[in-house]
Amino acid sequence: GGEIPQLLNVLFGNTSIKENVMVTDLALSPSLLSSFFGPRHGVRGLREILGVLRGPMLMTALKPMGSDVEALASMAYDFAKGGIDLIKDDHGLANQNYAPYEERVRACCAAVRRANAETGRRCVYAPCLNAPADLIVPRAKFAKACGAGAVLMIPGIGGLDAMRRLAEDPSFGLPIVCHPAILGAMLGGGSDGPDDVPIRGFSHKVLLGILPRLCGADATIFPSFGGRFGFSERECRDIALGSRQKLGSTPAIVPCPGGGMTLERVRKMNEVYGEDVMLLIGGSLMGHSPDLVANARHF
Amino acid sequence: GGEIPQLLNVLFGNTSIKENVMVTDLALSPSLLSSFFGPRHGVRGLREILGVLRGPMLMTALKPMGSDVEALASMAYDFAKGGIDLIKDDHGLANQNYAPYEERVRACCAAVRRANAETGRRCVYAPCLNAPADLIVPRAKFAKACGAGAVLMIPGIGGLDAMRRLAEDPSFGLPIVCHPAILGAMLGGGSDGPDDVPIRGFSHKVLLGILPRLCGADATIFPSFGGRFGFSERECRDIALGSRQKLGSTPAIVPCPGGGMTLERVRKMNEVYGEDVMLLIGGSLMGHSPDLVANARHF
Repeated sequence: GGEIPQLLNVLFGNTSIKENVMVTDLALSPSLLSSFFGPRHGVRGLREILGVLRGPMLMTALKPMGSDVEALASMAYDFAKGGIDLIKDDHGLANQNYAPYEERVRACCAAVRRANAETGRRCVYAPCLNAPADLIVPRAKFAKACGAGAVLMIPGIGGLDAMRRLAEDPSFGLPIVCHPAILGAMLGGGSDGPDDVPIRGFSHKVLLGILPRLCGADATIFPSFGGRFGFSERECRDIALGSRQKLGSTPAIVPCPGGGMTLERVRKMNEVYGEDVMLLIGGSLMGHSPDLVANARHF
Repeated sequence: GGEIPQLLNVLFGNTSIKENVMVTDLALSPSLLSSFFGPRHGVRGLREILGVLRGPMLMTALKPMGSDVEALASMAYDFAKGGIDLIKDDHGLANQNYAPYEERVRACCAAVRRANAETGRRCVYAPCLNAPADLIVPRAKFAKACGAGAVLMIPGIGGLDAMRRLAEDPSFGLPIVCHPAILGAMLGGGSDGPDDVPIRGFSHKVLLGILPRLCGADATIFPSFGGRFGFSERECRDIALGSRQKLGSTPAIVPCPGGGMTLERVRKMNEVYGEDVMLLIGGSLMGHSPDLVANARHF
């Protein structure tokens, strides 16, 4: 089968150290496409797992950094009760002393399980696999054994092929959510302003849409326009396009716009991203009122 | 000990998806520094292994892509006879049908061993570990078993922490050379022109000097100024600085400027990079005359 590292090398290996070269799009032959495993679940699979057959899905993150395991698990319980579909670790959570990985995953899985038993829903907890290279797979399997329903990968740090490897592993099989940390540094320069020129890097569509999809992500997180990051509406539409456009028989994946989104912006997001989307709303969900369960319901 | 993925996340995780943020330098506390394993060999170790105790070391690459195993091994033999110190695979070599990894590594190791027996020198062959995530360590250990003297890692593809993992492995222990493919996309924009502003990304010093060094590289390849890539002299000096400047007790590593370098430029390179350098000269070494052995000697 095709090897992702070699694809990346051909695509943008040495060229990446030249200036003023952008990878704007990526078109592969059907036979090459079919040699990549791709997402195990995609939009349809993820909807079935979460039990949300139509309309936007909802994601939030366990914050702030520094919270201990008890606080994180209690937050996870509240969010699950409030109707969030997927609760992820903050991507900054690794194996810190204040919330060690195994203890945290065990507690949050239990909390979400308890909430689901009470609501009859299928909320899923996705621990963050921001792990040393040799611990990514062991931590993933530990999460599965605890009852986690998905995982959060950071391919900008661990490598895109580490995600592919996990997606292909038949003894793992959980959905994978892709986080853009560090990947941002690989985006070509500039926003849409008239003076901006592409500098060096990948287009938003390729880096946050097509590549995560080829490498086994079922959902891709990115900062939406209008939030505290600088992506433009066109760049975000392009990411959604890369997640969905026809790509041989590779399933479509779920765009997850987030990053300083407020509840007020939800209508505009629905309009731009359509129905097959997972809205990631974090801080503003917590700021709404002290009652997380009520806040999540409101959302 | 400190975890590289978490360091990267704190350093430039979400920030990387903001525009107009550059990581220009990196200063860590002595205690944090000491928690990273760092390069196993560094300048001094590499000099001992290669038996080149002073003056610039010489590196070249097996090219062009598409050459079969016999051609590559014969080229390796000629280079080793001609006095090259480190012969690396072209970074595009993975496990292609025309030069499968195991066959290639076995043949090139044997060729260099034969040349060394004839010359009494200690030329080293470094196969490329541009491998799927789960095959990096097995391929590295296969290379060692065949008698390879070093390996070439591509952390822009496989992840910086995969390099750290290999460097720390006591049952491996060979020198690691870092190749910049894909990493280039993470460099902040612009050259030194008056109109250029940093856009988004890492400085040359951090990305190609300090980070590879912290993550266990013993030598770092980059395109030198004046070649076919667009790095400026200042950017190249900064990479050399990141490779060498005081960094707790982390050993200095070897800057390896290359990329379209001609024999004529060697004097200027020596002036800029000083003595502790490995000059990477590829194509022009082959173009000089049809006799590779003589060409390498000339160089």
